[in-house]
Amino acid sequence: MTQGVTVWLTGLSGAGKSTIATLLEQELRRRGLRVEVLDGDIVRQNLSKGLGFSREDRDTNIRRIAFVSKLLTRNGVVVIVAAISPYRNTRDEARQSIGRFLEVHVKCSLEELVRRDVKGLYARALRGEISNFTGVSDPYEEPEHPDVVVETHRQTPAESVATILAALERAGYVHSATLSGTNGTPRQSDPV
Amino acid sequence: MTQGVTVWLTGLSGAGKSTIATLLEQELRRRGLRVEVLDGDIVRQNLSKGLGFSREDRDTNIRRIAFVSKLLTRNGVVVIVAAISPYRNTRDEARQSIGRFLEVHVKCSLEELVRRDVKGLYARALRGEISNFTGVSDPYEEPEHPDVVVETHRQTPAESVATILAALERAGYVHSATLSGTNGTPRQSDPV
Repeated sequence: MTQGVTVWLTGLSGAGKSTIATLLEQELRRRGLRVEVLDGDIVRQNLSKGLGFSREDRDTNIRRIAFVSKLLTRNGVVVIVAAISPYRNTRDEARQSIGRFLEVHVKCSLEELVRRDVKGLYARALRGEISNFTGVSDPYEEPEHPDVVVETHRQTPAESVATILAALERAGYVHSATLSGTNGTPRQSDPV
Repeated sequence: MTQGVTVWLTGLSGAGKSTIATLLEQELRRRGLRVEVLDGDIVRQNLSKGLGFSREDRDTNIRRIAFVSKLLTRNGVVVIVAAISPYRNTRDEARQSIGRFLEVHVKCSLEELVRRDVKGLYARALRGEISNFTGVSDPYEEPEHPDVVVETHRQTPAESVATILAALERAGYVHSATLSGTNGTPRQSDPV
């Protein structure tokens, strides 16, 4: 049976996880694969309403995302998780439980994050107005051995997506675009 | 792309939902389909720890099951939900959101439930020792227009499963066993 994989994007708020997730989703769908994006903020609405941002609540949220990712992955779906997921242990737990798993560190310097600050959150966090703000007033544990690192302060989103796709192909989780294209149409029933 | 369906088993505790879910799962897997069982008690562990049995908490739990069922169904999985799901509105909401949906009322007389009472829960509930016990001290809203009714006080589990399978085939959600068997092997990439 077709097998899926979970691409787990971890990184600070504003680093570009959702943008990369959307672009990656488009490219994988173009190749005829089944894809679901589990975006941290959206999943909180559906699975974790009422949970806050304590370590315990964050972990619970991540475990729920991992549970759903596991169900989808073992049914042939490419799952793209875009969630800060600040704690190393909890990410490792997700990897263990899901198996077919690519950890991507979406890295961006704090300087650049403060410069972008689309929602004005970093400014507020730096003024001490937001407690539990990851990277400022709450910890972010960088992956020690991520499968992929993309540095969004020096790469375009398209470059980051290309890097992730190359890693997915190298690991055998998806076919290369060239292979997929040889018979003219996406091969939906092939191993992912 | 292959499409899935959610088979939603609703009914009182002890009516036979889990037993039917397991047998149905086996038969559908035998036919080469992708199947996931979302059992209310197990899902509570993974998605809803901390929730209780108030109407609000029950509804939240059911909405989470529906969210996961929707993701799986639209990716070609046959999802079998086994959950008391006592409230009509919440089940209807699940149907709306999932689309490809078969509501099965797993019906059993209270007399028979009290007679079976495998876990001794009905005896305790009837003595007033368990509040919020569905069917005794908490409401159960029977489906008004279920797609299927199975009556487990007069049917064996195998008969109930046969009834559900027939309904799935009639609705076009799964191929009949005969069709599936014509080429000797389950056809994994066919429309469900």
